[in-house]
Amino acid sequence: MRVLMIGDIMGEVGRSALSTYLPRLKRTHQPDAIIVNGENAADDGRGITRGIAREFFGAGIDGITLGNHTWDKREIFDFIDDEPRMIRPANYPEGAPGASVAKLSLSRGELTVISLMGRTFLANLDCPFRKADEILKSLGKTGPILVDFHAETTSEKQALSWYLDGRVSAVIGTHTHVQTADERILPGGTAFLSDVGMTGPYDSVLGMEREIVIKRFLTQLPVRFEVAEGRVQLNGVLLDFDSSGKARGIKRIRIDDDQPWFE
Amino acid sequence: MRVLMIGDIMGEVGRSALSTYLPRLKRTHQPDAIIVNGENAADDGRGITRGIAREFFGAGIDGITLGNHTWDKREIFDFIDDEPRMIRPANYPEGAPGASVAKLSLSRGELTVISLMGRTFLANLDCPFRKADEILKSLGKTGPILVDFHAETTSEKQALSWYLDGRVSAVIGTHTHVQTADERILPGGTAFLSDVGMTGPYDSVLGMEREIVIKRFLTQLPVRFEVAEGRVQLNGVLLDFDSSGKARGIKRIRIDDDQPWFE
Amino acid sequence: MRVLMIGDIMGEVGRSALSTYLPRLKRTHQPDAIIVNGENAADDGRGITRGIAREFFGAGIDGITLGNHTWDKREIFDFIDDEPRMIRPANYPEGAPGASVAKLSLSRGELTVISLMGRTFLANLDCPFRKADEILKSLGKTGPILVDFHAETTSEKQALSWYLDGRVSAVIGTHTHVQTADERILPGGTAFLSDVGMTGPYDSVLGMEREIVIKRFLTQLPVRFEVAEGRVQLNGVLLDFDSSGKARGIKRIRIDDDQPWFE
Amino acid sequence: MRVLMIGDIMGEVGRSALSTYLPRLKRTHQPDAIIVNGENAADDGRGITRGIAREFFGAGIDGITLGNHTWDKREIFDFIDDEPRMIRPANYPEGAPGASVAKLSLSRGELTVISLMGRTFLANLDCPFRKADEILKSLGKTGPILVDFHAETTSEKQALSWYLDGRVSAVIGTHTHVQTADERILPGGTAFLSDVGMTGPYDSVLGMEREIVIKRFLTQLPVRFEVAEGRVQLNGVLLDFDSSGKARGIKRIRIDDDQPWFE
Ligand SMILES: [Fe+2]
Ligand SMILES: [Fe+2]
Ligand SMILES: [Fe+2]
Ligand SMILES: [Fe+2]
Ligand SMILES: [Fe+2]
Ligand SMILES: [Fe+2]
Ligand SMILES: [Fe+2]
Ligand SMILES: [Fe+2]
Repeated sequence: MRVLMIGDIMGEVGRSALSTYLPRLKRTHQPDAIIVNGENAADDGRGITRGIAREFFGAGIDGITLGNHTWDKREIFDFIDDEPRMIRPANYPEGAPGASVAKLSLSRGELTVISLMGRTFLANLDCPFRKADEILKSLGKTGPILVDFHAETTSEKQALSWYLDGRVSAVIGTHTHVQTADERILPGGTAFLSDVGMTGPYDSVLGMEREIVIKRFLTQLPVRFEVAEGRVQLNGVLLDFDSSGKARGIKRIRIDDDQPWFE
Repeated sequence: MRVLMIGDIMGEVGRSALSTYLPRLKRTHQPDAIIVNGENAADDGRGITRGIAREFFGAGIDGITLGNHTWDKREIFDFIDDEPRMIRPANYPEGAPGASVAKLSLSRGELTVISLMGRTFLANLDCPFRKADEILKSLGKTGPILVDFHAETTSEKQALSWYLDGRVSAVIGTHTHVQTADERILPGGTAFLSDVGMTGPYDSVLGMEREIVIKRFLTQLPVRFEVAEGRVQLNGVLLDFDSSGKARGIKRIRIDDDQPWFE
Repeated sequence: MRVLMIGDIMGEVGRSALSTYLPRLKRTHQPDAIIVNGENAADDGRGITRGIAREFFGAGIDGITLGNHTWDKREIFDFIDDEPRMIRPANYPEGAPGASVAKLSLSRGELTVISLMGRTFLANLDCPFRKADEILKSLGKTGPILVDFHAETTSEKQALSWYLDGRVSAVIGTHTHVQTADERILPGGTAFLSDVGMTGPYDSVLGMEREIVIKRFLTQLPVRFEVAEGRVQLNGVLLDFDSSGKARGIKRIRIDDDQPWFE
Repeated sequence: MRVLMIGDIMGEVGRSALSTYLPRLKRTHQPDAIIVNGENAADDGRGITRGIAREFFGAGIDGITLGNHTWDKREIFDFIDDEPRMIRPANYPEGAPGASVAKLSLSRGELTVISLMGRTFLANLDCPFRKADEILKSLGKTGPILVDFHAETTSEKQALSWYLDGRVSAVIGTHTHVQTADERILPGGTAFLSDVGMTGPYDSVLGMEREIVIKRFLTQLPVRFEVAEGRVQLNGVLLDFDSSGKARGIKRIRIDDDQPWFE
């Protein structure tokens, strides 16, 4: 089974980049499933709307993972419970709306997608390590499992990947909006990448207008961040799992003006 | 001018990896200067000793940048003032020992190396943005300038790179111990990489024994971190600057069992 | 000289409590100057408006100190530069609007009021210790000096008080919204209180509706904090300075239904 | 039932202050139970030893609560499981050694003491709110319950007190080492004080040598904190519970040279 995962889609610019490249990515790589992180897909980069989620599913996206920005748009509370393919971090306290484990039925079998969120410098959630144990135990025997670990620090990401090595097919980090170059398959058969990166404005700070972010660092005064405009980037990762759920391949995808798409 | 920068050398394992690969890297890439981040070079991964600094200089390293671990070994206070090629973050409050700007005389000219440290989630230092302004003003006209920006978050790293674009030759991040895949040359001619990564144990969490780090996350009890053993990795970046100090090339170097060295 | 300082006025409830008790406090204590912290005086507890500032000055308040909420209402940028009696933390980076040192001319002499803000768990400002040195040097010989130190941690507050002992008349903490019981005069003659407390809703969490705050802790989901209603509290401190600027007395004031006002 | 709770005993100076004042406090107030927070009781202010615990119990202390410094002395792991009157925060992940709920049999009935720890700016523990629910459910019908809530922020402390109002006899905060002046009995009958304060050196920063702490803030360089010497302070609180477990009285105790003991 081949899975294409695409990192945090950032605003209208990010959605447009996705529209541009998705057909080519499908044609070239023939993925069995496409997962995107959608926590920044709304126009202002904060959260996601029902309309945008539908747009993604309509374009052939199989699952949308989320993160700390899950709840930024109030309307999420109105529709997340209706949509089992939207996957919010599982370690929010019990009772949070929405699904955090999705079983996606694909032509080549079933893919389980789990979202977890780190705590270091991020939020006082339940322990992602023990929550992962709990989910895996409840799942029982299953096909390939992809974990989106939405976390700030490299230590928490690497630690979880080793903790889950051999028990899931892949641990792919999101949240920092910068793709890392540490893709590998751990000894137990779990593919790992600390962060898949962001899809959106290329000349920006994490997708935001750079002059505004610089002003914030320089003055420490409040600013209103805005999604940047201009050139785009797309960041993703291509994962190959065998029938036993072991990872057989992991390949980063980076598309921007410095690393343009060639077919 | 070609500069090879190698990321945080971690303990004895990291120093050994450096010894193994440095001759080949020199032979293949013929760098005019070699800079390493040495904040984790001591045996326990915390700080650096005089002996290790001498070992690095003896092996042809031209400058050693540091970071938040600069002061971990008490002996640093005895020798850092004698060694202008050891470069600690410039934005420690005035009066801190050691140099933070080094002018290295090379056969192909002079390279200025500056160390700065981020504040977000890290330490209450002086503003790295304004400190950079101050240093650049004091430097006046100069040749290529390499900035090691030791910081936790991708936002602070990207923001500083845009802030310094066109004013320095490169901004290379350190501290997260994970190489990022976002190398580029910004429009003004400044090469940028969010993090160059770590040199040390490959099967580890940031260089530390992984079972201990996992135990820490699981139990939240104190543990004694130890540098891991076993297979190694080396992470670096190769930078080309023209005579005006503009970056002309940036190329990541990653060596480990999954991406082995081929000559 | 006798100074009455009243802690963070919280929303309409806090302003109303101030109106209720201020005449009695004046009558009973006959202060030469009244200073309030106004960073939460707007209706929603975030920032302050021009109208509210005028209301305070009209009621006989001599100076309004601020804090991390200084900039919450956008209109502050339109009027803070016109009002030298509004005092924002001095250790914002140079160029921030507004005054941070006020020299108030009183019938019994001049009182200098300085605002500083802590950094620990709060904001990446300039060093408050060195900024205090700089201000005190620039002031030269002067009458009594009151420092409002807006900070989160008891360690930073106590450390600054010892650092300034003998150099200012008082260091009074704000920001935690809870009055501390550690009032004292340090050996050098500086009065100190870690936090003066908050003026506003008594049955609340720091002034906010308690059910909403509890929901936030329980669910970790976003909530919209609202200023609480109902019973009120007023917290302040009464300071006596001699002609040399030394503190001669410090007395906490706490008014609420459990410690009601008796004339 | 009358309970005397004494705040974080800091090093040898704190233990000595306790020895000095405990007999007088017993004689004057005739408490049925005495609880101390012992997380800083070791000579260097970090953790507690078996010998010191025995010394406390020998002096008539009925229970020792702990906090984030529980584990600082390695020997704690050797004896905490043998001592049901040592009470560490209950919301460490399951499997942590030691008791977190103590049922103390007193001449006037049974007192249950629970330790919980905050998460904000402190540690990634389990949710203290839900852990409290769980403990209270498991306890069933019981006599008075005292909760030591070891936390950094006033918001988390106030929120928990409201959450538990009517379900426990008292929520008393520790950790900031500064006594707050907000003692009250909430409408449901739960006594509350944000922080009981510290017992140890009076002329110090949280018990530590003040020049060292100031140096740390000024230089941001590593320092070795040392427990201060000289004059002492004792901070505590006196609680009266009726037979139904409701609080009937709460009175702060502060003893130092500015508020000396009078019999
Ligand atoms: Fe994101
Ligand atoms: Fe995120
Ligand atoms: Fe490092
Ligand atoms: Fe570092
Ligand atoms: Fe406030
Ligand atoms: Fe504040
Ligand atoms: Fe303590
Ligand atoms: Fe503590």
